[in-house]
Amino acid sequence: MRAMGPRSSCLELLRSHHAAGRHLVVGLDTVVSRIPEAVSPGSEPWRRVVEFNAQIIEATADLVCAYKPNSAFYEALGQGGFQALRETILAVRAMAPGVPVILDAKRADIGSTNEGYVAAAFDALLADAITVHPYLGAEALKPFLARGEKMIFVLARTSNPGAGEFQDLLSDGVPLYRQVARAVATDWNQRGNCALVVGATYPQELERVREDVPPKLPILVPGVGAQGGSLEDVVAIHTKAGSTSFLINASRSVLYASSGEDFAAAARAEAQNLAAGIKAASNAS
Amino acid sequence: MRAMGPRSSCLELLRSHHAAGRHLVVGLDTVVSRIPEAVSPGSEPWRRVVEFNAQIIEATADLVCAYKPNSAFYEALGQGGFQALRETILAVRAMAPGVPVILDAKRADIGSTNEGYVAAAFDALLADAITVHPYLGAEALKPFLARGEKMIFVLARTSNPGAGEFQDLLSDGVPLYRQVARAVATDWNQRGNCALVVGATYPQELERVREDVPPKLPILVPGVGAQGGSLEDVVAIHTKAGSTSFLINASRSVLYASSGEDFAAAARAEAQNLAAGIKAASNAS
Repeated sequence: MRAMGPRSSCLELLRSHHAAGRHLVVGLDTVVSRIPEAVSPGSEPWRRVVEFNAQIIEATADLVCAYKPNSAFYEALGQGGFQALRETILAVRAMAPGVPVILDAKRADIGSTNEGYVAAAFDALLADAITVHPYLGAEALKPFLARGEKMIFVLARTSNPGAGEFQDLLSDGVPLYRQVARAVATDWNQRGNCALVVGATYPQELERVREDVPPKLPILVPGVGAQGGSLEDVVAIHTKAGSTSFLINASRSVLYASSGEDFAAAARAEAQNLAAGIKAASNAS
Repeated sequence: MRAMGPRSSCLELLRSHHAAGRHLVVGLDTVVSRIPEAVSPGSEPWRRVVEFNAQIIEATADLVCAYKPNSAFYEALGQGGFQALRETILAVRAMAPGVPVILDAKRADIGSTNEGYVAAAFDALLADAITVHPYLGAEALKPFLARGEKMIFVLARTSNPGAGEFQDLLSDGVPLYRQVARAVATDWNQRGNCALVVGATYPQELERVREDVPPKLPILVPGVGAQGGSLEDVVAIHTKAGSTSFLINASRSVLYASSGEDFAAAARAEAQNLAAGIKAASNAS
């Protein structure tokens, strides 16, 4: 990729990482209270978040297929939240120019309103992709779907303990999360810019979704680590399905690998550890 | 309500308005390009939004049961968006102190992440209520549900043309939007701080939801006006069910009633017109 050329599409960027065996996503879900004291002491909270994130990005840039800041952690900062998020994404562009940014914002409104979210996420913040709720259907999400160079990651099976309340409801014998996955992989994906989210905490459900959709459709898998999902399960399920289109997210285990001044080196070590675990699982399965 | 006393809960505020026959919500979905030129010419876009909203609020404060800014329109402003939203909510507190603000942000993430959205919406922005997606279930929404003085408005049937893609899926003969409505009205509502969203563009679905849930459970009804829903239908459905717990939202028809310098007076006239329409429909049905 030439520095001055047009930016590749999000899917192209992801595919090049996957082809190189990079599947790790670092979730930039930074909480001010957990930033080591040595990072920009005395600065405003949002500036400390940016500085912390920049050091994490610099330390992990060659190990990941994407970064995923969750909007909630930035919105919680109040006034400085937008700037913290924008400068974090600009730090990715500067230090990891071929790595796409998935804005984990879980948006979705009616069509005309989604134009505002598209402007915010893709144009003001420069994210390459965004996570969205499926509840309003494809028609409402047209403003997102129309952006062929970007991607949307649609929630199918979420990682939380109570995910099944509605996602497990059966319709014609098929649970809602699979209905969503099948629709997204077919009707929704006219421009090839759709992907899914399935939590690692539900390996059986992940296996079913992986079988339901083409091997090339990317699945973002949160829930490994603090939430208890197994990295090995995620890799084995993909290998079995003949797919390399998976993104495994880790947030807290990487960001807070050390609370001392060595946090960036510790984050790199943990990211290397996770990347090696993915590689070993790929070879084993 | 004494000016220096603690703020009443969102539900108490809503009920007092409903008892007084006020059911109109003005949706503060302000788009910069539609603000009359006379409003703070030359100022930054976000300041023009705040000034425009302040004049709309001042002109309609005695006619409404709530204001509902949609976050997407503010996020689209980029850097100034948070401040525009916060100052708009502060303007409601100042000029319409007994009128709750429903932040239409359609959020929902896993539990620990929702704490960030709670901090942003309720603590940083001072909203009294927020709209949320049901997809992750009640367990994920605990941080919202725990705030008994606030309210959550859960999407049941959305107003968009393609709403039925998943919301109409039948499980045990009951469509998803009714499954959501029934759960929210019972299991979710332990603290009495839950409400629903059902679009006026689907009067049959609204009637079914209204019958499914207790008459005291508030239903927010968008989609009247530009989207084609009928105010008379909404009122008649509630009267038939013996309920006065409804909120009818109007956005564009009020905000842009005039593109001239008389926009605030025109907005007031349109809000009066809608309020009179609600009253007439209540008396007729």
